[in-house]
Amino acid sequence: MECSHRFPKTSRDVSLKELGKRLAEFAEVRGWEQYHSPRNLLLALVGEVGELSEIFQWKGEVAKGLPNWSREEKEHLEEEISDVLLYLVRLADVCGLDLGQAALSKLVKNAHKYPVTPSQTST
Amino acid sequence: MECSHRFPKTSRDVSLKELGKRLAEFAEVRGWEQYHSPRNLLLALVGEVGELSEIFQWKGEVAKGLPNWSREEKEHLEEEISDVLLYLVRLADVCGLDLGQAALSKLVKNAHKYPVTPSQTST
Amino acid sequence: MECSHRFPKTSRDVSLKELGKRLAEFAEVRGWEQYHSPRNLLLALVGEVGELSEIFQWKGEVAKGLPNWSREEKEHLEEEISDVLLYLVRLADVCGLDLGQAALSKLVKNAHKYPVTPSQTST
Amino acid sequence: MECSHRFPKTSRDVSLKELGKRLAEFAEVRGWEQYHSPRNLLLALVGEVGELSEIFQWKGEVAKGLPNWSREEKEHLEEEISDVLLYLVRLADVCGLDLGQAALSKLVKNAHKYPVTPSQTST
Repeated sequence: MECSHRFPKTSRDVSLKELGKRLAEFAEVRGWEQYHSPRNLLLALVGEVGELSEIFQWKGEVAKGLPNWSREEKEHLEEEISDVLLYLVRLADVCGLDLGQAALSKLVKNAHKYPVTPSQTST
Repeated sequence: MECSHRFPKTSRDVSLKELGKRLAEFAEVRGWEQYHSPRNLLLALVGEVGELSEIFQWKGEVAKGLPNWSREEKEHLEEEISDVLLYLVRLADVCGLDLGQAALSKLVKNAHKYPVTPSQTST
Repeated sequence: MECSHRFPKTSRDVSLKELGKRLAEFAEVRGWEQYHSPRNLLLALVGEVGELSEIFQWKGEVAKGLPNWSREEKEHLEEEISDVLLYLVRLADVCGLDLGQAALSKLVKNAHKYPVTPSQTST
Repeated sequence: MECSHRFPKTSRDVSLKELGKRLAEFAEVRGWEQYHSPRNLLLALVGEVGELSEIFQWKGEVAKGLPNWSREEKEHLEEEISDVLLYLVRLADVCGLDLGQAALSKLVKNAHKYPVTPSQTST
């Protein structure tokens, strides 16, 4: 089986602005902007978080990297986790927020809230 | 350092890989990797979705752009929506998924699932 | 308006203990107890909350009593809201909690937290 | 009042109708009915599910009966699980649904969907 290009090592780096722009176009050409109110999108997000949770619900603890998951299960997970992301990006957009900037700011805030202690850095 | 343009109108475009990398470092230097199992992160994500929902819960319908929200409310929303994003990125990372690539693939799949009809494009 | 038969007066009053008992039997005779760990049930609950949210997601604000909903939509809602309840009751049960007693205690606590003011009672 | 048996082992059986009635009164005397639209209550429910999840988020797998939890943790859990129940009961009520009846019907439906097989009953 020829599969030298199946998993390109240099997968493209996707930005939040690119996703936001694509989602805005997606909604516009379909006439869906009328449905994309903040609370509608929030409830759609909750719906997708539910579908994401269903994947994990009967599994007990799951190891990092999902070692025993089938390809189908991983692809299903990729779809559901993407759905959550897409609604989150769209929600931020219709609220007029810069999600990427907000996330960076939150990271800085968290870094101050949880400073690294000497004993942590030495290990 | 010249700071007069630190928050320019054309804010920096943040990528999912950059967030993933920063979050991995954040967890590593604090010794938190042990807590970042997939289901722990998923429940933390659900917790943040709950905090996001609390912001919208008593408001009735909310208009796009959040016209009557105070600066404090908007900042609170930015923080909670960022928390959801950060746990989502981290969850994808510990599961070994390429979230940006998965999101683009889902967009393509959605475009096939919901084709644009002529009447939609003509309006 | 004559409406003596709109809501059958004698719909049976269902208790939390009865539901808990039935759910325990349901799991036992199917050999499902092994899957009913607290976090498995919690994630199943989140999944059902997602399905409940999907019913409301594209509707904009919804009036009390669901005046314009079809019979099918209402039945779908009854099923999803029941699923949330059933997992909640089961979760409390496997955690060893008395959910009914806990709910009554929380009501008393809330009554103290939000006292009724004279202006509220006079209206 | 004789208090030595205030919390007897055979605690009182609480019904869904009783909770619904108490919650309706609670909202009425505080003038809160105006806020209790279906989607407001649904988002409040999601908020409480988030708080419930936060209790479990960093614990890894949790054993039935919560053997190593402190009294404080259990009481916190009782409060959050009650909050979810109370909003669920209230949501059903403002939607005009009979939650207890709906839950019983769903149990019957589930029993038909997942019949008990001979090998299950023999074990």
